[in-house]
Amino acid sequence: MNFFYAPRVFAIGVILAMTSAASAQSDTNPPATVDADVIDTASQLIDTALNSSLGFDIVESLTTEVGPRLAGSEAEQRARDWGVKLGESLSFDRVSVEPFSMPFWDRGELQIALTSPYQQALYGTALGGSGTSDQPIDAPVVYFRSIHDIETVEAGSLKGKIAFIDGEFMVKSQTGAGYGEANHKRRVGWQHAERGGAQALVIRSVGSDSHRFPHTGMMSSKEDQWATIPVIAVSNPDADHLRRLHELGQTMSMRVHSTAGWKGSVSSGNVVFDLVGRDKPDEIVLIGGHLDSWDLGTGAVDDGAGVAITTAAAELIARLPHRPRRTIRVVLFGAEEVGLLGARAYAEQHADELDQHVLATESDFGAGTIWQLVSNVNAEANPVIDAIGRVIQPLGIARGGSDVPGGGPDIIPMAMQGVPTVRLNQNGMDYFDLHHTPDDTLDKIKPAELAQNIAAYAALVYIAAETDVEFRTKKDEPEASTADE
Amino acid sequence: MNFFYAPRVFAIGVILAMTSAASAQSDTNPPATVDADVIDTASQLIDTALNSSLGFDIVESLTTEVGPRLAGSEAEQRARDWGVKLGESLSFDRVSVEPFSMPFWDRGELQIALTSPYQQALYGTALGGSGTSDQPIDAPVVYFRSIHDIETVEAGSLKGKIAFIDGEFMVKSQTGAGYGEANHKRRVGWQHAERGGAQALVIRSVGSDSHRFPHTGMMSSKEDQWATIPVIAVSNPDADHLRRLHELGQTMSMRVHSTAGWKGSVSSGNVVFDLVGRDKPDEIVLIGGHLDSWDLGTGAVDDGAGVAITTAAAELIARLPHRPRRTIRVVLFGAEEVGLLGARAYAEQHADELDQHVLATESDFGAGTIWQLVSNVNAEANPVIDAIGRVIQPLGIARGGSDVPGGGPDIIPMAMQGVPTVRLNQNGMDYFDLHHTPDDTLDKIKPAELAQNIAAYAALVYIAAETDVEFRTKKDEPEASTADE
Repeated sequence: MNFFYAPRVFAIGVILAMTSAASAQSDTNPPATVDADVIDTASQLIDTALNSSLGFDIVESLTTEVGPRLAGSEAEQRARDWGVKLGESLSFDRVSVEPFSMPFWDRGELQIALTSPYQQALYGTALGGSGTSDQPIDAPVVYFRSIHDIETVEAGSLKGKIAFIDGEFMVKSQTGAGYGEANHKRRVGWQHAERGGAQALVIRSVGSDSHRFPHTGMMSSKEDQWATIPVIAVSNPDADHLRRLHELGQTMSMRVHSTAGWKGSVSSGNVVFDLVGRDKPDEIVLIGGHLDSWDLGTGAVDDGAGVAITTAAAELIARLPHRPRRTIRVVLFGAEEVGLLGARAYAEQHADELDQHVLATESDFGAGTIWQLVSNVNAEANPVIDAIGRVIQPLGIARGGSDVPGGGPDIIPMAMQGVPTVRLNQNGMDYFDLHHTPDDTLDKIKPAELAQNIAAYAALVYIAAETDVEFRTKKDEPEASTADE
Repeated sequence: MNFFYAPRVFAIGVILAMTSAASAQSDTNPPATVDADVIDTASQLIDTALNSSLGFDIVESLTTEVGPRLAGSEAEQRARDWGVKLGESLSFDRVSVEPFSMPFWDRGELQIALTSPYQQALYGTALGGSGTSDQPIDAPVVYFRSIHDIETVEAGSLKGKIAFIDGEFMVKSQTGAGYGEANHKRRVGWQHAERGGAQALVIRSVGSDSHRFPHTGMMSSKEDQWATIPVIAVSNPDADHLRRLHELGQTMSMRVHSTAGWKGSVSSGNVVFDLVGRDKPDEIVLIGGHLDSWDLGTGAVDDGAGVAITTAAAELIARLPHRPRRTIRVVLFGAEEVGLLGARAYAEQHADELDQHVLATESDFGAGTIWQLVSNVNAEANPVIDAIGRVIQPLGIARGGSDVPGGGPDIIPMAMQGVPTVRLNQNGMDYFDLHHTPDDTLDKIKPAELAQNIAAYAALVYIAAETDVEFRTKKDEPEASTADE
């Protein structure tokens, strides 16, 4: 906010807040600082990380030795076994698996083709939560230019048809800003198609590439109900093709046959690595990524990278002569893609110690270079975040907002319980080219960019675990002061 | 060649040749030139082409209204119908289809997966000429680092196995220089695998991309025999994955099931458009592209672009007030991908008029910008080619060698009969990213680059058809001189 242009009433509030903060600092707490030797060690960690191949080795091992690892599958179980072996082979003090149960959605097999005006294979894939067709569906296509056009469809008006929702090409950006809007049709399109009575729904993939890959991803449930019809995403070039045929006035038909569907309850789990703090072992700085991946690729950028970045960062800290004061916990979350199920299980299973989680963040936006540090912590702790920002600034990372909530998808459930968060924003310009496609493979990760990520995480996490600053926003100032003593 | 550094004996030869050429020019023919008004009209054609969407409209129509068009298929028949309609809707004086018969190879259906050390789908496709497996093949994989490693395999030593030929990543270049070497394993790998007794052969795709697309393409026959085993190309990322597993010492198994195979004799054809010359109607300047495509993509860059470039160039010439002196012929060759079958049929069916084909060239290297003009014509005609080079130089096109044979794949059979050739070399840096993959779709063509191609072809073809220079190399100087009169 620019103070001088703020409305008057707002400005007064800010002045009061500033006065209050200033008096709180001068009366009870000196401004939070970071000791010079901690800064030095953090800088050394950066150098070490930039010259280490540990992170790339981890993601290479995960993607090669485990491969794709759909939430709840046997492959995700193998990934947990791999995680335990990895943790035990490194320097962690505790390695554990925390199981939870979940409903299993299986992609099954898909046939999808244009059958009129001529026969042509389409490159499609079922969306998570899609229903089954017992028999192949052969039906004319009703074209909707966007999700907004199908929202007003009359009940029953799509009987005997396959609905196709086109949509604008997803906006590409460093921040991934175009995703929410493009994703709307994926999340709720099926509800409108089913209201219309369509036999199947086909949508343009949610992705910013122009390759012949469909992007999968989860739909949203409605009152805990999922689609009963097949819901299929086709690649952008396929959607372009259908649009051109539509614009030529061609009547289109398709054949869709999908055996996707829900297949009962299964086990998943989170894998947890701890570096136990030498001084305040109960205070936890939590980092992580998610271990499951969609099944089309090998989950290199989503989210083998996050697993590798956070594990490697913690391991480099573990190789220092002493453990940091606080505990550093790496969580490899299970079943993220299908609804943050591992993250929810973690928040439930650790409910009684969430108030001891002093800071949390996740790496789950690919393997691109980090360009910005944002945070959402107690204002009095901002000087420590700023100090971290200065340490990682040589990596090409700007200090962003200090009031930006959200530390990554799997952090949401604990952030909702008051856990403070930071985020190291990665360059996502190409992330949605690969996201949820068969093309999410190891060759897309640049080792130098991965190392930059690890360097930033190592410095951040080390400082956060070595300081005793309180990142949590105090609900009640006097009480918080007492707690500080 | 740099004259001053040439070996002496060579230099003498050059001097003699120069003397001979100079005396030939001074004695019998004045140096070939191009009239200024012809140059002016060619420059105007360039301006018109750069401001026309005709070429893009043609390739959009072909890829959208016909789609993929495998040689010999019903889809290729629809492409010929489309071609006839296109030719008739434009300004051509004659539009015809010249049929020929051919053996039909059908891709059928393919299942390919890694089954050990774990289950993972592989992105593969059958190579042209591949055989059938009646039952799924489940077998251990024998890894060969390159085609050279399988060349020495002992007879029978691969019994009960699937052979996998890896290979180096294809070199990327403007000229496509890496293709021949990378392609060796595709062409003849099956012969070694069959000698070893393998149940199937899998190879790394011949392609310069790192996307999860397999590249198809024809194998070579051996004494007119084709592979009896399935021969499958997998994407580069899949091949990387198999290499990493191999390097980890993992034993791999695969399941391969392919119903590809030969399916009898069918009809194909070349579509021919003529602009009949106003002065020398029997002398033919031939340009073209090929109408068939592989079936995985929609054949936009291979070779919808060539069809569009050459058709549009001829059409722009047809819109001039007068026909050029010589006939301009556009040939949309059938069945190029499966062995230049249309080109061979053309050379046979036109054997008696090939000596009237004064110049020939094909556009079949994508839709990238043209950067070089090379030629292989009678030395006395080089000044005309040089003049053409100067006209198209503002398009960013350099004059390359005047002794470079080959005017494009479909020109080979007629060039072998002495038809002179030129070639407008396109930038192929990205061509083998898309070549023979599902990703060869319209969105990969940049309209401005396509227009630059059409501009260059229009200028080249117009001048070649308006001049009366003899491009053909005279076998016997006196006789050729007589013919000139």
